[in-house]
Parts: sequence; C-alpha cells; structure tokens
Amino acid sequence: MAPSPRDASPSLQQAMDDVTNDVNRTIERLLPETDLAEAQLYKAMRHGTLSGGKRLRPFLVLQSAKLFNVDPLRSRRVAAAVEFIHAYSLIHDDLPAMDDASLRRGEPTVHKMYDDATAILAGDALLTLAFEVMSDSETHEDPRVRCELVHKLARAVGAGGMVGGQMLDLIGEQQAFDLGTISRLQRMKTGRLMAFSCEAGAILGKGSENLRRALCNYAHDLGLAFQVTDDILDVEGTEEETGKDHGHDAQAGKATFVSTMGIEQARTRAEMLVEQAVRHLAPFGNRAETLKELARYVLSRRA
Amino acid sequence: MAPSPRDASPSLQQAMDDVTNDVNRTIERLLPETDLAEAQLYKAMRHGTLSGGKRLRPFLVLQSAKLFNVDPLRSRRVAAAVEFIHAYSLIHDDLPAMDDASLRRGEPTVHKMYDDATAILAGDALLTLAFEVMSDSETHEDPRVRCELVHKLARAVGAGGMVGGQMLDLIGEQQAFDLGTISRLQRMKTGRLMAFSCEAGAILGKGSENLRRALCNYAHDLGLAFQVTDDILDVEGTEEETGKDHGHDAQAGKATFVSTMGIEQARTRAEMLVEQAVRHLAPFGNRAETLKELARYVLSRRA
Repeated sequence: MAPSPRDASPSLQQAMDDVTNDVNRTIERLLPETDLAEAQLYKAMRHGTLSGGKRLRPFLVLQSAKLFNVDPLRSRRVAAAVEFIHAYSLIHDDLPAMDDASLRRGEPTVHKMYDDATAILAGDALLTLAFEVMSDSETHEDPRVRCELVHKLARAVGAGGMVGGQMLDLIGEQQAFDLGTISRLQRMKTGRLMAFSCEAGAILGKGSENLRRALCNYAHDLGLAFQVTDDILDVEGTEEETGKDHGHDAQAGKATFVSTMGIEQARTRAEMLVEQAVRHLAPFGNRAETLKELARYVLSRRA
Repeated sequence: MAPSPRDASPSLQQAMDDVTNDVNRTIERLLPETDLAEAQLYKAMRHGTLSGGKRLRPFLVLQSAKLFNVDPLRSRRVAAAVEFIHAYSLIHDDLPAMDDASLRRGEPTVHKMYDDATAILAGDALLTLAFEVMSDSETHEDPRVRCELVHKLARAVGAGGMVGGQMLDLIGEQQAFDLGTISRLQRMKTGRLMAFSCEAGAILGKGSENLRRALCNYAHDLGLAFQVTDDILDVEGTEEETGKDHGHDAQAGKATFVSTMGIEQARTRAEMLVEQAVRHLAPFGNRAETLKELARYVLSRRA
C-alpha cells in the first residue's frame, strides 16, 4: 500500500481522496485487463498507474476545471491522461539505466516486477495512450480544444520540457549545476507538467488568457515548492514514510536544492514559493480555496 | 553511410531520393542543433533520425497525400512526424534490454553512440515531438484534421499497435507462435504505422471513406510483404548490404515467416501480398503508379 498523505486538513484530505477514487475508476476504464498474448504489457501499464501515488496532477486538472464548471466526465479523462504521462516518466526514470530504483510507492518498480524491456514498452504505451485519450472526441466536442490540449501537453513533456529536464538531471550527476540551472531543470522536469495540469482545466473551460496565466503561475510556484520539499524529504524522510529508496538523490551525487542552499534556506524558499503560489489565485477569490489549501499542504507533507 | 536501395527503377529511385531530401530538410528544421546544457539529448535525437534509412513511411505519406493534391508543406510535416515515430521505435528496440543491436543503417545505434539513458530519453522525446508536430496548426488549418491525425497515429503505435507488437515480438523469443499470431504481431509492429502513413495522406486531403480504405488495405499488404522480405534478408542478406547485424532474429530464436514456412513459401507469400497490394490501388488508376512501383520493388530489394 502507498503511504497516505499526512497533515492535510480534513476537507483537503476528502478532496484528495475523491480525486484518487475518480481517477482510478477512469484509469480502470481506459486501461482494462486483457487476456491477449501481450497481456504482460497491460499488466505493467496498470501496475505503473494503479499502485497508489498522490494523484497530485489529476488533482490540479480536476480542481482547475471545476473553476470553469467543466463537466467532470471530461476533466477526469484529461486527469487520467496526465497521470499516464506522470506514470510513464516514473517507469522510465526508475530503469537501471536511469535512477535504478527498485521501490516506488512502497511497491516494486515496474522493471523489478516484470523486466526492463516490458518497463520500457509500458512507458512508451502510456505516453502514447495519453495522446490517444486527449484527442478522442469524448474528451471534448470541440476539436480546437482537443488540439490545444495535445499540443500544449506535447510541448510540456518533450525535449523542451519534462524529458529535457530528465536529461539535465542525469547530466547533473557528472557536473555541478548552479542554482539557476537547478531551477530550470526542475521547471522542465516537474513544473511544466504541473503547469499544464492546471492550464488544462482552463483550456477545457475555454477560460480567458488572464485566468490561464494565473493558473500557470500558481502551478509553476507550486511545482518548484513541491520539488524543494521533495529534496528535503529525500534527506529527512524515512523509507517507510516516502515509500521510495531513501537518500537516493544525495547518494547519486545529484545537485539538489538542499545540497546547493542547505536545508534551512531550502525550507524558507519553499515557504516563499507557496505564499507566491497562493497569491496568484487571487482572481478566483474563494472559489480556489482547495487549490490554496493544497499549496499550504506541500509544506507540511511527510510523503 | 546507409546502403542505398538497389534494383529500384530510375523513376522510383528518383522519387525515393526526392522524399529523402524533403524529409531530411523538414527534420533538420523541426529538430535543430542547440548549445543548451541538454544538447546531448538533441544530438541523440538527430542521430536517430538523420543517419540514413529508407524513409519508407515518409514516402507513403507524401505519395498518398499527392493523390489528394495536398500542399507538400503540410504532408512533409506529417512525413517527418511519422519518421520520428519510426526512429523512436528503432532506438528503443535497439537497447540492450530489447534487441541489443549495436549497428543500424551502418552506424552505431544511439545507445552505443551515447548511453542507454540518453537513448531511452531520445526515443521518448521523438515520440512526443511527433504529436507536437501533428497537432500544430502549421500541419493543417482544420483542427478536426489535426485531431484525427493525432488520434489515429496514437491508436496505430500504442499498446494496440506498434508497442503491443514489439511486446509480442519479445514474448515470441520464449514461446513458439503459430502463423496467425506472427501475422498479427507483424500487423501490429509494422503494418499499423505503414497503414497510418498511407491513410494520413487521405486524412490531410479529406479523401472519401472508400479511398481511405483502399490505401489502408494497400499499406497492410505492403507492410506484411515488407516484413516477409525482411525476414528473408535477415537470413540471406549480408551485413554490408542491410547495414545491420546479420541473422539477428534467427539467432534470437524468434519465430519469423521464414522459420515458420520456409524460405520458398515465404517468397511466394511476399509475391502474393504485393500483387494484392497493387490491386487495392485500382480506384486511383494511373495516378498511383509510384505506389505500385514501390510495392513491386519490395520483392527485389537487397536492403
């Protein structure tokens, strides 16, 4: 079992649990079990997407879509697609050729459960499935909206975004980065997909440029805060709490926010980023209370 | 240098050279060199896409688009995107965890040139880039067309298509498949992307359902014929001719058309498939002469 988040307020916890249930049901529907000869591929894809996880990105999609009164049947599909992308990136990152992780969310990683080849293919198939779901007319009746979702997602997670960030991360094992490069790396590796997750709600709801920008700015600061606290947890958290190998980044000699600025300054930075994130949501007034709560929770989380 | 195809008629050879030049220029534009810290990722992506290759799939896109008088500026983008997909699949297939190939088109494979992690990421980024290009308004002004391209491409190359076929291929190393399963495997692994390449021209040109089906049928038979002759070349071709490790599939104990039906029957089968492929193009009359020539060339090729 994956560790459950702690210190979330009861209302935030309820909202997070609801998202997890919704997105799991949608993933189950989009990725059913099969008895085809290639069943192992589907099992690996399901293991990579249905073995717990915080569902942070789906949460951002569903909550931002709610601000524009988007039909949840639609936003859940986009939430699942975004989670497919996140899961694919974890499956590939965990491979022996990359981070070589054996544990994820308290369970064996996909390549440990099956083998490296299956893990590579499961990641490839999940990435592809995300685009299949996004471009399906069930996701939105307006092809303009579907195209924008596909295009912005692709830009967020390709060489100029998530994958480029992962490349930088690997280069960072051999080479000391300055704080600017670490920030750029994290914006690419984590921030872009988080920003897309928030913007997706506005795209589905045809929100104004102004409100889109507010959500993107929120997501960028949230993503960076999340990464800083991740670095702190990597040093301070126990394996039992985080469900993954402990001190992994430090052992790999990677430059992190903590290794560069020290743990106290990293904590201050995270607090500053969260405050900033919350301020970006001002245009939505009280309607964005849950997204604000989420930002504050990032500071207190233990996993 | 990659081996050049032999025994193509002068007019087919000219058409193939034109496609290679067009698609290389388009790839160069879509994937420029960079001096960013993550430059290695782009170098690997370029090595995987610009080191020769027959450009069969781009050829199918451009030739089928021509039947519908599609602006070449558009069809070239789709041709490049399809080649990104093909290149990504080769990069991942060549990894040590999969086929463990060190040579491709007479050059070191991407993971040999760089490392496994870079090869995994370069493949991921190319797959993503294909969808970015497809969904860009420069590819077609009608978002309905772009969405259909994205959706059909995703279905062709995901778990139900190319990736599923690759999974089956790996399972086939441990387990003897019958001819039906080998055909299904090849339809998924090679046929679906070839069929998409042909259908893409019709999608761009808003062709009728009837003509689309004709092109898909042509592509399916062509793809299967291509695979059968590939299996023959794997046994008979020299490394110098094919530019890849020789007898590789046979050594891996994979069930191929040749291992299942013998080389003579495989040759007869290829001939029958090519005849059938040519017949499917009847609705286009003389306009499809180049596509028919291509089908016949599959029988005589040496690489």
